[in-house]
Amino acid sequence: MLTEQAMMDQVFSYEALLAFTRSIFEKIGCPEKDATTAAETLLSADLRGIDSHGIARLTGYVRLHEAGRVNHRPEARIVHETLSTAVVDGDSGLGLVVAPYAMQIAIEKARHVGTGWVSVQNSNHFGIAGCHALQAVARDMIGIAMTNASALVAPTFSIERMLGTNPICVAVPAGEEPAFVADLATTTAANGKLEILQRKNEEAPYGWIQDKDGSPSTDPHELKNGGALLPLGGDREHGSHKGYALGAIVDIFSGVLSGANYGPWVPPFPAFMPMPTGMPGKGIGHFFGAMRIDAFRPAEEFKLHMDKWIRRFRSATPAPGQTKVLIPGDPEREMETVRRQKGIPLLPAVVDDLKALSDKLGVEWNSGK
Amino acid sequence: MLTEQAMMDQVFSYEALLAFTRSIFEKIGCPEKDATTAAETLLSADLRGIDSHGIARLTGYVRLHEAGRVNHRPEARIVHETLSTAVVDGDSGLGLVVAPYAMQIAIEKARHVGTGWVSVQNSNHFGIAGCHALQAVARDMIGIAMTNASALVAPTFSIERMLGTNPICVAVPAGEEPAFVADLATTTAANGKLEILQRKNEEAPYGWIQDKDGSPSTDPHELKNGGALLPLGGDREHGSHKGYALGAIVDIFSGVLSGANYGPWVPPFPAFMPMPTGMPGKGIGHFFGAMRIDAFRPAEEFKLHMDKWIRRFRSATPAPGQTKVLIPGDPEREMETVRRQKGIPLLPAVVDDLKALSDKLGVEWNSGK
Repeated sequence: MLTEQAMMDQVFSYEALLAFTRSIFEKIGCPEKDATTAAETLLSADLRGIDSHGIARLTGYVRLHEAGRVNHRPEARIVHETLSTAVVDGDSGLGLVVAPYAMQIAIEKARHVGTGWVSVQNSNHFGIAGCHALQAVARDMIGIAMTNASALVAPTFSIERMLGTNPICVAVPAGEEPAFVADLATTTAANGKLEILQRKNEEAPYGWIQDKDGSPSTDPHELKNGGALLPLGGDREHGSHKGYALGAIVDIFSGVLSGANYGPWVPPFPAFMPMPTGMPGKGIGHFFGAMRIDAFRPAEEFKLHMDKWIRRFRSATPAPGQTKVLIPGDPEREMETVRRQKGIPLLPAVVDDLKALSDKLGVEWNSGK
Repeated sequence: MLTEQAMMDQVFSYEALLAFTRSIFEKIGCPEKDATTAAETLLSADLRGIDSHGIARLTGYVRLHEAGRVNHRPEARIVHETLSTAVVDGDSGLGLVVAPYAMQIAIEKARHVGTGWVSVQNSNHFGIAGCHALQAVARDMIGIAMTNASALVAPTFSIERMLGTNPICVAVPAGEEPAFVADLATTTAANGKLEILQRKNEEAPYGWIQDKDGSPSTDPHELKNGGALLPLGGDREHGSHKGYALGAIVDIFSGVLSGANYGPWVPPFPAFMPMPTGMPGKGIGHFFGAMRIDAFRPAEEFKLHMDKWIRRFRSATPAPGQTKVLIPGDPEREMETVRRQKGIPLLPAVVDDLKALSDKLGVEWNSGK
């Protein structure tokens, strides 16, 4: 995919894009340390091949800032805690900065009492869940990250958009094998996949979206006409009530437990969209967990068994026409290896956006590798 | 559904079935207290309408006992712990008894440090996940329960059965509204649904099962021919890699974290099936969590918002032809209300099995309401 894209797209080094992104965040008022954290968090998406959630969204973050919807000098703080839990108020900061702060608290609590669980209110979009969950893995912990988001998904039996794509990530350390990293939107297809079809003007498979009347649709632009994304499962017969339940769990853990907004009241990412009326909480909500492996069994023993688990699943008999069974996290890790070496391809429209940002904010755009 | 079934099936009072089940468990050697716990846990499935996991399985539990695969006088104990975690060795006991013991430990830990997390090794089948998660709800806690099970599910791109239907339950207390209870197998359809189609000799929808070569199949008997259940999502295009990842998370939390078996090595429920060879752990694994609501925010405040969440979702615009949006747990709770009043209908084949048990073990079969 990289090769095919690379022919159409310009390719930039991770370092060049990181420096640019950091400068943009500094320019809109983030302290240097926060700008670095925000840039690294945002670009982790590009490295892992989740292009929809990476630098392509930088302009969107700047617009949120311009609309006064983000506090770029937040003082995130714990507003309630026990030995294994905390609620963090993100002070309207960038989720890209608030989330790493909250995940760090979960990790610290796990260090002391075995596990740590942090629910976050008053935050904003936090990039990809995987980036945060992986913070725990380096410390021999299982990492968990989830977030709610503005409503694009209709529950089973409904035509009303009530839930975001509400991703869940669970990252588990292994020994010689790379970590197991399941990072999934609780919908049939992430919104980013729909965006790709929109750009190419290609049809979506049945089961991804419905139109405003609840009929199946293959039009990737259907959401503009009042349609909705479908929960994982697609329809009732194929278990969409389970995808709906999973998205609801993310919403409750992230929004209701923390005091953030939830359901149809979660604020939108595009700054031109009006804020929901009658919001019951503050900002967007996240939920993070860290579980120390050796709070359950010796870490080395666990890792030997995780290696065995991974190798056994990798060697499961492939279906005809398939070469192998993947372990969750394989594609993203392989993508990161390639992109760190060969650079990150960007669509011409994204490059144009970034150049416009460069001009507007007076930040030099490093145009080459 | 109850009415339709009631015409074909005999109906028995919950109390009569409970007394019979308790007597059977006592007869095979369970102490009185354990027999009561096991019977209540098993019958919670019948009350909630999950007929495949209730008294219909009593004969199966007795066969496991006869095959020497269950210790009916287990001394379950904590083998490792921290302030917020524990690993429990179930001593080969009935999961119906071991699971409530482990959930109680999670609840106690949550009482002290905000949350409690217990991974269980050396256990057996534990009935329905919902029964255990709901223990926490009565104490103003969020309850979480999951278990691995013997392999029936092929990962995406594979034809080999590697995972059980590995259910997850998350139960969340509300205020005036009933609790939110999401209890879901991580497959398109639970095995119990397939069993119903087998009995009726009806076809399954595409997306539930594949044949031994990995081709889509509608034959509910396909598993006997080497076929497999499919992960939630059904196929790659509709997100089956997400269902696979969710089932894998359950397997890792329940099996690898505890020291139980995992993947294709999880012991089967039917006693006539051979045990897997080269088992890397002990018995079946479970994972339980309890999170005290007021470890995050005041419980009354949380419940007001959960009520608001539930009412908003319940009033989401229904699709044409639908009457309303359901909240996870609604159908099971409504079923329980009906069945506590009007009794539990049993298929003639199940009644025959129970009568045979009655004869064999000399336990009186109460044949009326």
